[in-house]
Amino acid sequence: MRTQVAIVGAGPSGLLLGQLLHKAGIDAVIVERVSGEYVLGRIRAGILEQVSIDLMDEAGVGARMHKEGLVHGGFEMLFAGERHRVDLDKLTGGKHVMVYGQTELTRDLMEARAAAGLPTVYEAKNVRVHDYDGTQPYVTYEKDGKSERIDCDFIAGCDGFHGVCRASVPRSAIKEYEKVYPFGWLGMLSDTPPVNHELIYVNSPRGFALCSQRSATRSRYYLQVPLTDKVEEWTDDAFWQELKHRLDDKGRRDLVTGPSLEKSIAPLRSFVTEPLRFGRMFLAGDAGHIVPPTGAKGLNLAATDVKFLHDAIVEFYKENSEAGIDDYSRKCLARIWRAERFSWWFTQLMHRFPHDEAITSKFQNAELDYLMNSESGMKTIAENYVGLPLDFGTASG
Amino acid sequence: MRTQVAIVGAGPSGLLLGQLLHKAGIDAVIVERVSGEYVLGRIRAGILEQVSIDLMDEAGVGARMHKEGLVHGGFEMLFAGERHRVDLDKLTGGKHVMVYGQTELTRDLMEARAAAGLPTVYEAKNVRVHDYDGTQPYVTYEKDGKSERIDCDFIAGCDGFHGVCRASVPRSAIKEYEKVYPFGWLGMLSDTPPVNHELIYVNSPRGFALCSQRSATRSRYYLQVPLTDKVEEWTDDAFWQELKHRLDDKGRRDLVTGPSLEKSIAPLRSFVTEPLRFGRMFLAGDAGHIVPPTGAKGLNLAATDVKFLHDAIVEFYKENSEAGIDDYSRKCLARIWRAERFSWWFTQLMHRFPHDEAITSKFQNAELDYLMNSESGMKTIAENYVGLPLDFGTASG
Repeated sequence: MRTQVAIVGAGPSGLLLGQLLHKAGIDAVIVERVSGEYVLGRIRAGILEQVSIDLMDEAGVGARMHKEGLVHGGFEMLFAGERHRVDLDKLTGGKHVMVYGQTELTRDLMEARAAAGLPTVYEAKNVRVHDYDGTQPYVTYEKDGKSERIDCDFIAGCDGFHGVCRASVPRSAIKEYEKVYPFGWLGMLSDTPPVNHELIYVNSPRGFALCSQRSATRSRYYLQVPLTDKVEEWTDDAFWQELKHRLDDKGRRDLVTGPSLEKSIAPLRSFVTEPLRFGRMFLAGDAGHIVPPTGAKGLNLAATDVKFLHDAIVEFYKENSEAGIDDYSRKCLARIWRAERFSWWFTQLMHRFPHDEAITSKFQNAELDYLMNSESGMKTIAENYVGLPLDFGTASG
Repeated sequence: MRTQVAIVGAGPSGLLLGQLLHKAGIDAVIVERVSGEYVLGRIRAGILEQVSIDLMDEAGVGARMHKEGLVHGGFEMLFAGERHRVDLDKLTGGKHVMVYGQTELTRDLMEARAAAGLPTVYEAKNVRVHDYDGTQPYVTYEKDGKSERIDCDFIAGCDGFHGVCRASVPRSAIKEYEKVYPFGWLGMLSDTPPVNHELIYVNSPRGFALCSQRSATRSRYYLQVPLTDKVEEWTDDAFWQELKHRLDDKGRRDLVTGPSLEKSIAPLRSFVTEPLRFGRMFLAGDAGHIVPPTGAKGLNLAATDVKFLHDAIVEFYKENSEAGIDDYSRKCLARIWRAERFSWWFTQLMHRFPHDEAITSKFQNAELDYLMNSESGMKTIAENYVGLPLDFGTASG
């Protein structure tokens, strides 16, 4: 088989890249280790920045998102027993975010790809990338007991943190930066109306909590828990009880409980690979970087990687220029580090760390108190939350 | 002896309080453990916020400060090899700071106190505070071998971190928050023109440096050093060499070296006592809280404590109201925690910590890069640096 771009991984990054390339008239084949159902079964983030919304539209798959997604012009911060609203709309001059689950976004992309008859190989075993240092890279895999080979011009590594693409690069050619946090997020999905029409980020003496949502009838809640906790040990009742402890009186009154649809514990990690380009192979999304989920940057960052990669590949074919390709890593990393910084900062600000001195939570409260009372402090949160402009830093920096 | 307010400590806090009370027609006696020369020999901060400038004027001792002090409308941040200017004037709508050494400010206050014939007891041994829980507190000490006693209405504890006032409070009545940093500042004073007309804060891979000044012909430089370093081990040459390593090319070219007038190593500490009022005794300045020197908040915070204490005492005598006294601790602590937060944050942002992961300096650079490229990010630095308004947070909070 021969294609222009071999995409490894059929998560949102790979699917979005495939769709954008298709719109640009560039052929791509996606190879995925697991099944489509498995991909859809992973519950992930649900907050889209404008840049991600725009890309879904550009890929021609934004219709259901605009119909079902909830536009949020703000969110709440609860600390020291009081709520404060971050008015994104007002603070950023009209920007907002959209609540639309990654599962739904992935489904839209999968259906559009199937409808266009574009090739995706699911349950491909033993995927390997080859000769990306030269001009004739190829990908091999096994399917139904047979060995297959895809010859291509480029390999897009959209295969996540545990994927084969990054792992194939010699250690000497790559630098990895990592911070692992000493706690996890216990998430619960339930068909109950959200406790609030907007998200609530909670800094409580008992630890962080997040009241999120997927729709007007489906809630997504999170609790900071020790990494030693097992999800089986958390009954639904225990989850709701603990969430109530971390909320304020209004939250306790408004909270509607019900049976969980899903519960899982996710670790928190900051991780960045440098560079993101290795000859004719590029890393995009979780394959190149991970953020802790506080602030919901993961999916949005993947989307901008994909945008930059798409632009670079289009430039290569249409303008016969390698400038975009050569600049891919630098351009992505500038944006990635800003989002990594924000996610790390927001995580530090909102969580309890096991060995903190007593002064640390006083600093947290003082910082939250400062930010909520300062116009410019509020703006720093808001402009990062909705996503810094794609050309941030290039004008004055 | 009898007075209205017995002030323990003749550093800038005690002297400023004495002068302000004198202007309001309230009697005070200052008792100090060491000599006046010793107090003046301590080299400390040199950056005054507007609130401190105003208080010096209110105390009637601002003449020399206005003549010799240097108005600074901005400062520079050097990181990743590049300088960025924080334009305080523009970012805060016309605010600035003044370079005027604590030694000079203390000298002005000492001279004004002497000129007014106000009583200060230097080299008072074995100072003790008594009965501050009742309405007839008193202070005892020994001078020239004789025991002395000052009866008073109030005791002002302006006797610093190691002073007797805070140490006299039972452990059960006080809560202390503390963070000790794993490095110190090696400071050097020299009669050389400053490397730059404004301050330069430096984040370098070799550690923090600060290029400060006292006048157009006197420089004050600092280097982050391990706590295990001894000042005797640092020759002048070694200091200048290391400073050059941490500067940029322009800094290396512009730096004028010369013999040191003074060199010393100071540890860095964040420390807050709660509350600051114990019956008829009040803590002000370093007796109640310490900030790391990054951002120069220590003296300015002491000045606002003194302002609030002065206002409360005047209210007590003139309006026969204890409202100000009752609110002293809360009012000071709200401002103190904001400055503590800023000083801690600025310290974390600019220093290398011994056990940091590689990702930490990437986060530092990403944060500095974000702040320097964001109008609101720049404003958060500027508004904290010049000092948040005295009524900050009361309007909207």
